[in-house]
Formats: sequence, C-alpha cells, structure tokens
Amino acid sequence: MVWNTNLRWRLPVTCLLLQVALVVLFGVFVRYDSDADPHWTNRKMQENFTSDLENEFYYRYPSFQDVHVMIFVGFGFLMTFLQRYGYSSVGFNFLLAAFGIQWALLMQGWFHSYYQGYIHVGVENLINADFCVGSVCVAFGAVLGKVSPVQLLIMTLFQVTLFSVNEYILLSLLEVKDAGGSMTIHTFGAYFGLTVTWILYRPSLQQSKERQSAVYHSDLFAMIGTLFLWMYWPSFNSAVSNHGDAQHRAAINTYCSLAACVLTSVALSSALHKKGKLDMVHIQNATLAGGVAVGTAAEMMLMPYGSLIVGFICGIVSTLGFVYLTPFLEARLRIQDTCGIHNLHGIPGIIGAIVGAVTASCATSDVYGVNGFALAFGFDGFKTNWNASMQGKFQAAGLFVSLAMALVGGIIVGIILKLPFWGQPADENCFEDSVYWEMPEEPKSTVLHPEDSTLKPSEP
Amino acid sequence: MVWNTNLRWRLPVTCLLLQVALVVLFGVFVRYDSDADPHWTNRKMQENFTSDLENEFYYRYPSFQDVHVMIFVGFGFLMTFLQRYGYSSVGFNFLLAAFGIQWALLMQGWFHSYYQGYIHVGVENLINADFCVGSVCVAFGAVLGKVSPVQLLIMTLFQVTLFSVNEYILLSLLEVKDAGGSMTIHTFGAYFGLTVTWILYRPSLQQSKERQSAVYHSDLFAMIGTLFLWMYWPSFNSAVSNHGDAQHRAAINTYCSLAACVLTSVALSSALHKKGKLDMVHIQNATLAGGVAVGTAAEMMLMPYGSLIVGFICGIVSTLGFVYLTPFLEARLRIQDTCGIHNLHGIPGIIGAIVGAVTASCATSDVYGVNGFALAFGFDGFKTNWNASMQGKFQAAGLFVSLAMALVGGIIVGIILKLPFWGQPADENCFEDSVYWEMPEEPKSTVLHPEDSTLKPSEP
Amino acid sequence: MVWNTNLRWRLPVTCLLLQVALVVLFGVFVRYDSDADPHWTNRKMQENFTSDLENEFYYRYPSFQDVHVMIFVGFGFLMTFLQRYGYSSVGFNFLLAAFGIQWALLMQGWFHSYYQGYIHVGVENLINADFCVGSVCVAFGAVLGKVSPVQLLIMTLFQVTLFSVNEYILLSLLEVKDAGGSMTIHTFGAYFGLTVTWILYRPSLQQSKERQSAVYHSDLFAMIGTLFLWMYWPSFNSAVSNHGDAQHRAAINTYCSLAACVLTSVALSSALHKKGKLDMVHIQNATLAGGVAVGTAAEMMLMPYGSLIVGFICGIVSTLGFVYLTPFLEARLRIQDTCGIHNLHGIPGIIGAIVGAVTASCATSDVYGVNGFALAFGFDGFKTNWNASMQGKFQAAGLFVSLAMALVGGIIVGIILKLPFWGQPADENCFEDSVYWEMPEEPKSTVLHPEDSTLKPSEP
Repeated sequence: MVWNTNLRWRLPVTCLLLQVALVVLFGVFVRYDSDADPHWTNRKMQENFTSDLENEFYYRYPSFQDVHVMIFVGFGFLMTFLQRYGYSSVGFNFLLAAFGIQWALLMQGWFHSYYQGYIHVGVENLINADFCVGSVCVAFGAVLGKVSPVQLLIMTLFQVTLFSVNEYILLSLLEVKDAGGSMTIHTFGAYFGLTVTWILYRPSLQQSKERQSAVYHSDLFAMIGTLFLWMYWPSFNSAVSNHGDAQHRAAINTYCSLAACVLTSVALSSALHKKGKLDMVHIQNATLAGGVAVGTAAEMMLMPYGSLIVGFICGIVSTLGFVYLTPFLEARLRIQDTCGIHNLHGIPGIIGAIVGAVTASCATSDVYGVNGFALAFGFDGFKTNWNASMQGKFQAAGLFVSLAMALVGGIIVGIILKLPFWGQPADENCFEDSVYWEMPEEPKSTVLHPEDSTLKPSEP
Repeated sequence: MVWNTNLRWRLPVTCLLLQVALVVLFGVFVRYDSDADPHWTNRKMQENFTSDLENEFYYRYPSFQDVHVMIFVGFGFLMTFLQRYGYSSVGFNFLLAAFGIQWALLMQGWFHSYYQGYIHVGVENLINADFCVGSVCVAFGAVLGKVSPVQLLIMTLFQVTLFSVNEYILLSLLEVKDAGGSMTIHTFGAYFGLTVTWILYRPSLQQSKERQSAVYHSDLFAMIGTLFLWMYWPSFNSAVSNHGDAQHRAAINTYCSLAACVLTSVALSSALHKKGKLDMVHIQNATLAGGVAVGTAAEMMLMPYGSLIVGFICGIVSTLGFVYLTPFLEARLRIQDTCGIHNLHGIPGIIGAIVGAVTASCATSDVYGVNGFALAFGFDGFKTNWNASMQGKFQAAGLFVSLAMALVGGIIVGIILKLPFWGQPADENCFEDSVYWEMPEEPKSTVLHPEDSTLKPSEP
Repeated sequence: MVWNTNLRWRLPVTCLLLQVALVVLFGVFVRYDSDADPHWTNRKMQENFTSDLENEFYYRYPSFQDVHVMIFVGFGFLMTFLQRYGYSSVGFNFLLAAFGIQWALLMQGWFHSYYQGYIHVGVENLINADFCVGSVCVAFGAVLGKVSPVQLLIMTLFQVTLFSVNEYILLSLLEVKDAGGSMTIHTFGAYFGLTVTWILYRPSLQQSKERQSAVYHSDLFAMIGTLFLWMYWPSFNSAVSNHGDAQHRAAINTYCSLAACVLTSVALSSALHKKGKLDMVHIQNATLAGGVAVGTAAEMMLMPYGSLIVGFICGIVSTLGFVYLTPFLEARLRIQDTCGIHNLHGIPGIIGAIVGAVTASCATSDVYGVNGFALAFGFDGFKTNWNASMQGKFQAAGLFVSLAMALVGGIIVGIILKLPFWGQPADENCFEDSVYWEMPEEPKSTVLHPEDSTLKPSEP
C-alpha cells in the first residue's frame, strides 16, 4: 500500500493547532504553585521555615534534571540503534516529548493540582509530566520506524490522556504506591504500545528488513541512551518519593537491582549464542529491566538483597524474551515490536507490580517503625484502618486496571492511527529517515579519505 | 590568499603565556569566599545557620554542573554537525572555554567580588564564569571553521573582557535584571560574533562549500549537543536567580518556553520544505531559541502561558531566520554565519530583552506581593523609590548598551584577528580538521567490512 | 598462541556464580543505614533535625550521580577511541563496573560501615563503591583490547579486594586524607594495571597494530567520555569531603586545576608535533591529568593559584609522557599500556599524593582557623596531638603503601590472568570486537548512499 508521505501541511497544521490550544489552556488554567510564586517569602514566614532550602525546588530539582535527561537523551538515543533511523529516533522522540510534557502538565494538573480554579505547577509537576511522557516513549519503541510524526503526535495526545486517567484511578482511587511507575509508566506504556502496533500490523514489513538492524556506529549511539537511562534510573525511581529516607532508599534499591541485572543479561546473552558471543541488543536493553522491575517497590523495604534478586531475575527474563519471545510475538501474534519493549518494559513492568504488591503485603510496623509505617503507605485519614495486606491487594488491582486501560486504549488509538491519511510510510520505506527528513549528501571522499585531495598544502 | 597554518610555536607560546599570566594574577588576587573557606565553621556560628546546607554550595552546585555540561558538551557537540570539523568543534571549544573561565573569574571578580584587596570566589563565580564563556561559544559559532585556535584565544581574551565590562554596566550601573543572560550572553555574544565574521569576510569561501554541510553521523553527534543544551536550559536560566521561588519559577518558565518552541520549529521546518521534510539544522538550533528568549524574564512573573507564547514565537522566527535570513545576510551583507547564531542567539536574544523589559514594566506588588516585589527587583537601598516602569526603561537601555558594545567591540577585535599571522586557514581549507589536527589513517576495510580479513579463526 | 575464545559457558557461569554469591552475601550482611531506613523519622526527632534535608541524601546525591556518569559514560566512552573496539570498551566497562560496585559495597562495607552485625549502606557507600570501581576502570585502560570479559571479572574481583584493603590501611590506619583518591584510586589503579599488563606482555602485538588506532568517528565518541570526566571531576573530588566549605573548596580547586591543564596540554601537543598539529590522544587524556593531581589536596587550602600550578604542570608532564614515555615503556620495559594510563593516572596520581602531603604539611591554624584546622584533618580523638607535619609524613607513607600494594597485587593477579583458559584473544585478534560480539552486517549501500535505491517514490 502506498500512502502520501508528504507532510507539508499536515504536520505543521497539527503542531500549530496543538500548540495554540495548549497556550489557551495554559492561559486559562495554569499558575505557579506556592513554592514558585513570589508570595513564597510570606509563606516561609507563616510556616516558620528556617531556610529557603525548604522550597520543594531543592528537594526535587536534581532528580528532575536526571529524569529529563532520561526522557530526551535516554529514550531518544536508545532508539538510534537502527542504521537509517537516527534522525527520526532522536527527532520524533524530541517532538512527541515536547508536546507530551505540556499536555501532561494540564491532564495531570486537573487530576492532582487543581484547586481555587487553577492548576498550580511546581517542580513535582514537571517530574510527573516527564514520567507521563516516559510511557509514551516506551510505546514509541514498539511502533518505531513504522509511523509518521503526525501519528506520533496523535498517539501522544491520546496516550497522555489515558495515562492520566489510569494514574488517577491508581494513585487517588485505589491508593496504590507506584513511585517509579512499574504499573503506570512501564506496564501501561508497553501494553498500550504493543496493542497499537498489533492493530497497525504490516504483513509486508520484511521488505524493510535490511534497515531493521544496526550498524557499528549506530550501536554506539544507542549505548549513550542505554547508559544515561541506566545511570539516572535511581533518580527516576526516587524522584517523587517522600522526602528523606524514602528517596534515599529508592535510589539504593534501584542502584542494586540495575547492577545485578547487568550480570545476568550478559550471562544469558552469551549462553544463548552458539559461539558464546554477546549481542548488543541485550546489552542495550535487558540491562535496564532491573530498573523497571523495582519501580513500585524501590521506596519500600525491599532490602538491598531483595533488589539484587529482582534485578537477577529480570536480566534473565528480559534476555530470554529478546531471543525467544519477540520472534514468537511477531510470527504468531502479528505483534511487530521494533525495540522489544515487551522484554524491557512489559514483562519487567508486570514483575515490578507483583514485587510491589508482595513487598507492600509483607510490610510491618516492626520493619518500618510505627511512624515510618504510617508515612510510607499514607496510613492516615480514611486509610487509618488499612493494613499491609489490604494495601497489597489494591496494588494488585492497580496492575489489572493498568493492563485493561492499555489494551482498550491501545485498540481505540490503533484504529484511529490506521486511517490512511496520517502520512505513514509504505512497508518498503519503513525504518528510513529520508521519508521525512532532508538528507545530507554524503560526498564520496569524506569518511574514507581524510587527507582530502582538495586540501592544498598550506605551508609557505 | 595562503597563510602559514603551522602553529608549532604560535599556539604553544600563546597558551603558555596566557596560562602563566593567569597563575600570577590568581596568586595576587584570588582567594576563597567565606563559604569555601575553612573559617566557614565560625561564620556558621556567627550567623546562626542551623545547618551546613546553608552553604551556597548546596543551593547552586547542581545548577552549576548543568551549566558546565551545556558549555562543554552542549556547545561543543552542537557544532560537530560539520562533516570534517568535529575535532575542532569540540576541541577548540574545549580550549577556549578552559581559558575563558579562568579569565572570566578574574574579570568578573574585579567587578563584582573584589573586596579587602582580593577577589573572593565561590560556586556563583564558577557559574558566572561559565556564563561569560557561553557568550564566547556563541560567537565561536559565527566564525566556526574559518579561524585558527590562536585567533580563538585572542578573541576569547577580548570578548571576556568586553563581556565583563558590559555586564558590569548592565547589572551594577543600570540595575538591570538578566539572570539567564538574554542581553549579556546571547545578544552580546551573537552580535559580537557576527561583527567579527563580517570583518573577516572571505569572498572565496564557496571553495569549502562541500565541507560546510553535515553527514549522517555528524548530525547525530550534533543532536547530543542540542539535547544537553535543551534539557539543562532551565538550570541555565535559574542558576543565579534568588534563592527559593525565583529559581523555581525560572526553571518552570524555561521548561515551558522550550517545549513550545520545539513544536513551532518542527511546524515551520516542514512547512518551508517543498516536500514537507524536516531539516536537521532547524531541529538542532531553532528548538533552543525558546531558552534564549526567556533569559531575562524567566525569573519574573512571566506566567507559564507567557513562556509558551514566547517559545511559540521564537520557534517560528528562528526557523524563518535559517531559511530566509542567513542566506540573505551572507549574500547581501557579507556576513558568513556558520552556525546561524543570528537565528538562535541574535534575534531571540533581542526578543528576550524586550520580553524582559515589558514583563518588568508590568510588575505590580499585587502580583508579586509586597515583600516579593521588593525582593524580585531589588527595590531597596538607593532603588527604594524605583517603580516597575523605571525598571522596564533601564532594561531597554541595557539592550542598546549590549548591542553597542558588541558592534564596537566586534569591529576592533575583528580587525585584530584580520592580521595575517594568526595561522588562519586558506579559503579552500576552511571547515577542515586536518589543517590543525593529526588525522587518523582510515584503513580501507574498517567501516564497511566488519568481518576483518585479518581476523583468523580463533576456535580450536 | 591461539586460545579458545568461545565464552559460551565460561562467561555465563562466571557471571551467574558471582551474582549468586553477591545475593547471598547481601542477604546476610547488607542493610540500610539510618538515613535510608524508615526509622529516619524517629532519628530526625531524636537529633532535633529541623528538616528532612539533613538526610545525607541531599548533601551527596547530586555528586553521586555525577560520579556515576564518570564511571559508566566517562570511562566507557573514553576508551571507544579504538576503531574496532567500541562495543567492548563501553560494554565490558559496563559489565565490570556493575559487578565491581556490588563487590565494593561489601568489601568497603566490612571495613568502614560494619556494626551490629551488618553493613549499613547509604549514599556515601554508593559513591565509594563507584570510586573503587573507578580504580578498576583505570587499570582496564592498560589491558584494553587484550583480555577477555572473564579475565576482566576476575581482575575486578581481586582489584576491588586489594583496593579496599589498601584504602583501609590509608584512611583508617594511617589516617591519610585522600578525598579524590589520588593515591587510593589513581596511583593504585594505574600501577596495578601496568603491572598486570606487564605480566601479560604480548610480544607479537604489532599484528594488531592497525586496529590499535582511532578513526574519525571513534575519536568523537571518545571525546564524549573525556568531556563528562572533565566536567564532573569537581564532583568526583568533592563528593565525600566534609559538609560545607570542604566540598565547596574541593570543587573550586578541581575546576581551576582542570582548566589550566587544558591549556598546557594543548601547548605541548602542538609543540611536540613537527607541523604543530594537535593530537586527539593528548586532548582526550592529558587534559584530565589536572583532576587526578588535585585528588588529595583539593579539599585542603591549596588555594586557586596552587590548583592552577598543579594543573599547569600536569598538562605538560602528561603530554610529554604520551609522546616519549609510553613508547619507551613498551619498547624497553615491555609494558603495553593501551590507553596510556601511566600518563593520565600514574604520574599525575603520584604528583597528587606529593602535592597532598606538602599541602597538609604546610597547614596552619592561622590559615584554617582553629576550628577549621581540627575539622579539616580530623585532629581530635587520638589524633588530638598530631600536627600538620605529622599528617604530611603519613600522607607520604600512604603513597608508598599504595605503590607497594599495586605492584605486589598486580603481579599476583597478572599471573592468575596469564592462565590459558580465560578466553583471551590471540595476538592478531586483539582490539577487535568481533571476537566477543555478534557483529552487525554492514550493508554496502548504507553509509555512503543516503538516497537508498530501495526507497521507492512515495509521492502520489
């Protein structure tokens, strides 16, 4: 099938319409929260803060910046592994994330920061907007190379909306704890993306097969993405945890889980190759599964060894997924998952939700201390009579809600994206930058002959 | 014209002389400020600080590191888009910034941190030195590929000096607010650089035309620069703002402006291409204009929607500039602007100055609160009788002073750099690393044939 | 000599055994420290902390993340300069560091954080584990390209152990100050690595000579590593210093030293080339020597000009080392030092130890203030009667202990690694990724012909 891929009017009009709408909605609804408003000086006096440092900015801003790097450089470069899709990987990720964070500020704002007629934004809103977009970046990994930027903007519009509804159900109605988003970000994002790519199934995709792999340099660019995701994941999982020990513990647990995950990913990658060689796909992806899988439990008393065990298992499961499950999904279930997000975010996300539910169920006030216990799970107000086991059950319920939202939402959005006028590429042009990008001419002599013949001797 | 480009003695002598002078001047003038001095323990007691966290280090250090990354990786890699100038882009940027920050510590120190016979440096001085060098990096973008490292060191020496004088006039004499440097850094840096490149006009530069474009991989390296600039710009604009709400607000505003700017840059890039394709030059550059244009107003009550509007406009203006203005400037005004800094820093800088002046003029104590108002604009001491409108007028005056300093300074420095003995490359050798760098031999078989024929079977 | 390089069982078994052992040991020994434990709320009340910010997390976490980036991206990418060894440079560094940090948490924990039957970990332990692994990354630079991942894991196992013993002797028995690890990390790591590579001497290594150099793009990847090391080094040297002025001062001193080092490295690089051209090897490496050389003294009253002098000298010494010493070591002493770590970590590490000893000797309570003096060197408890001169002597002793440990340890570990069954590559296959990695097929048409012939016109 051949679609018109000339986006000359469709992409500009989509971008400008969305941005104009955002400006208007921000004008009507968005104001600074009390920590970002000049009345802070008054509030500081009223609340007897001894220092400007009590401003939320100083608790959260370094973590925010780490998360920001993960979304834009981490996800963006992780997907540059494709040999001819680097511009699009980084560029479209940039575009959808820039749109998504604005829309997320509004959607999440209406659900969580809306009072006195306005959404009040501060640094925590910025982090949560980045989180929300993270789930879109995950889904992008499934459809990478097969959709147009217009489709991506539409997917982002719907996915951010659904994400916010799902997040509201989980965090506010079910009172689920999910600081690092195993359920809200990873499970939801992965199964949403997989459902969309299932609906968008392309039977003749093998026509682009040769471009669906890496070249030497593209794999190194992808490692930039991998490493920034891996290094900053402790910040991701701790960014919105409670002040003090919870943030501290979340960072330690994530650090441990990720470290263990690297060793088992390497082990399996080598063991599953007939000559024992390592596969860059596994090193780039499976090593990160440990971060996904402690997304719910990182701030709980998972213990360092518990984190190691989670990472241990996820490195194995994720690598096995890349070797056996992805080909199976593509061949049998017609799910074409470009980046293998099912192995990096899907299964590890579910594992993370289960680990979180179990860890919450086992919590006792012996382990947490009486004050710490109430604080960690918010057991006050109407939750005063809750106990750990109830918390665990609600955690499990959160997983099922997320999966249901992802599947239903993914089907609807997939059907919308299947409409023939969004500028999607033909099957034989997938994974190819030149469909949407002005490409540089590559002079024949450049890369291989450094001593350019046009370079005249400049010595007198 | 053919110059001698052998720098064997000129570059080492320049570097060593400058560095020896810096050592001597640091020995005579530079000491630690009270937050970095071991007497801090005493000061803490005297001032009744309850915690070591009151040390300025903890307020500013994370922002400092983000700014540091912007200067060295951000600007350095942004300029690697040229196919044969990656070593020089990153390497010369590294050299000039390393020299510039030392010289800026002295120059800015004499103007702002000099008391009791010494310059007292702390983390805020480090940030300001990086800022100052940022303006040199901007100017470097205009002359990129056409000057020798000796010329760059000389340009840095003069530009840092002029920057510091201009900054002193604006911040200390005119009492202008310019936390993110729309005027001091971007407008000054851009028009200084444009004036220098105008003086250094090379009529036969089309001889190097083929190297003045990107190749596939060089564009991906450049995106590393773009993204680190884009992500950390909220830190840039908030790094030296007042503690508390001002830093917080500056980060939020910059985040918003940059996000909006991405969408309108993409829209215009596609709309201006006859087949609707995107141009990496716009994605790499115009997306950043939103950060430049809130450099003055970010810490003020610009409001989130105000930031979106500024970003919206700048993405459009900047992309239009790349498409129409840069070719015009080169053809008609003989301004050869390699990186298009006029579109990324020049016009957005002026817009930023105007936005700042208007935002300051409209400030009221209703919006800021009485305390907040005085704090935000420093309306105490001799400024007790100032009002917002006066502040706005002085802001506008600051823009004109910056432009005048840039033009006059640029002409003088341009004439100095035009002297024939600085080792500049011939017109046909511009944008070529091998003039100044020992180049690796590229074995013919490397990139294309991974299964190297020299690799003997190692299996027993 | 031809070894079996098929790692199919050896690498997986090694990884899994090590990781299982780590899980068990963590289960038995590792718990959260009081700042990461939910009882923090109680402790906060007991110790009258006014704010959650007193949690060590907020003092150290931003520095921790910077150090983390240095270890994984900094060291990883610095070593990608080799044209055909990028996967291994980044990937093996990732593997050994992920293993090393876990083992270091245990080893350093037993020595420094073991009480009440458990190792208590917090953010400072994470930083110290990264530091410890930093010394392994240094040693990796000497053997880069010539060892298998199994050898690297074994080397890491032993080196982390020896590092921790040495660190314990220095910091706890000799009461040495070494916040940035000139002795414990750099000197120890470098001479350990050099001794190992000396034992593993390969007489026929010139068979791989053609791959032992860079290509254009690999040098740019390496600059990513260089710049992240350079930018974040102030965080490295200040990460575990005392709260307040000591951290602040360490950052300033390191910033100054590194800046000066860039100028003298460039000067020497140009002066030592017959046509005055710069060499990327020097820019990538010698520019960092200034950070190594203030690793001991950065937190002391070295003064900004003192830092400049140290950086000045180290840029010169290090570049001279690359030009003259490395070839000499290889030809005469049979030390094949792939990355030239002797010039970047060895000599500058020794210089740093000496600078530290001298700076400590010269310390007076005039300069530090009475309180500051006792605090800076821990002159209380059993050290109450120490003076600066004694401290200086113990500092010097620390250097000799580190060198002795490195040499003896290096010989033992080198002999173990020389055993023929670790999967090491043959001499003609060194510096070649395809020995251990599944390599992508590189389609002939990709890099050079962007307008791919398979791309059919998609316009209607």
